[in-house]
Amino acid sequence: MDLTETTLSTTRLFDGIVFDVDRHEVRLGDGTESKRDIVRHAGGVGVLAQQPNGQFLLVRQYRKAIEREVVEIVAGIREPEEGPEDTARRELAEETGAQAGEMVSLGTYVASPGYTDEIDHLFFTKTTGNTADGKLDSDERLTVEFWDAEAMGNAVRHNGIQDGKTVVAWCLAREKGLI
Amino acid sequence: MDLTETTLSTTRLFDGIVFDVDRHEVRLGDGTESKRDIVRHAGGVGVLAQQPNGQFLLVRQYRKAIEREVVEIVAGIREPEEGPEDTARRELAEETGAQAGEMVSLGTYVASPGYTDEIDHLFFTKTTGNTADGKLDSDERLTVEFWDAEAMGNAVRHNGIQDGKTVVAWCLAREKGLI
Repeated sequence: MDLTETTLSTTRLFDGIVFDVDRHEVRLGDGTESKRDIVRHAGGVGVLAQQPNGQFLLVRQYRKAIEREVVEIVAGIREPEEGPEDTARRELAEETGAQAGEMVSLGTYVASPGYTDEIDHLFFTKTTGNTADGKLDSDERLTVEFWDAEAMGNAVRHNGIQDGKTVVAWCLAREKGLI
Repeated sequence: MDLTETTLSTTRLFDGIVFDVDRHEVRLGDGTESKRDIVRHAGGVGVLAQQPNGQFLLVRQYRKAIEREVVEIVAGIREPEEGPEDTARRELAEETGAQAGEMVSLGTYVASPGYTDEIDHLFFTKTTGNTADGKLDSDERLTVEFWDAEAMGNAVRHNGIQDGKTVVAWCLAREKGLI
């Protein structure tokens, strides 16, 4: 079966703060025409960071979209012309004050390909140890938490950590024997 | 630190096909005011389905948002008033023709809480075996694939499968000793 969808025309329907929305008129392989609304997002990174004492650095934030606090790995949107590894180092420093060691790629995370183009590069790093007050965006509020491996494994297993990129980074770091 | 963000007003800025967009004017804990653009999505399900012979049922679709074919677990958006388990059974039948056995909850998947409210309920099920032509939406095209556990484990580990809900469902089913 020919799965490809060819774009016939594109219209920008929404210009937002962190994402835009385009509508594509598409033609399917058998000639059927349809429409796809797509969130345009810059993409970003997620960083699973481990302290020299073995604890993991997580951040707790209020996420308005789901009206609750969410515990996540360090993450952020890439700046124009910034490579993923540089984004990862910058976000780790901004959110936790910690300095990254070697950045090990865990792969990429596709958040929800049915309607958003967000793709995040995931990394594992061992920090040099110290954390400090970071340098957050003017409307960014978060607290840094230190979790040991057992607490994190339990939280993943029992769905206490639900954020997709965080679970994926944890599982991939385990699958690759990094933690 | 008070992380809560209180909504001062909400405006619907985009009405779409599978999602809408709201802008919230918010007040942070320290009185700072800001704006949050939020994708409103119905949420859905993902189903890791295993055949009696041990193979996993995956679906391959062209995802316009990232302009490529993506291999994913069976997934779909819930209908109004439909419970997650019913959505999961319906989607499995529609996409693969297979009938689900017991539905085991794996937990919930938060796709990207910085800007979308999408939360998916993930399940594991053993099918009764037969697949058939499903009953797809008029503009839905996919092919069903049969993957053995070794191929799937390798694809997750080496980032050949990148879809977030698929990786999370796989890891959680393994963590829980289901597969």
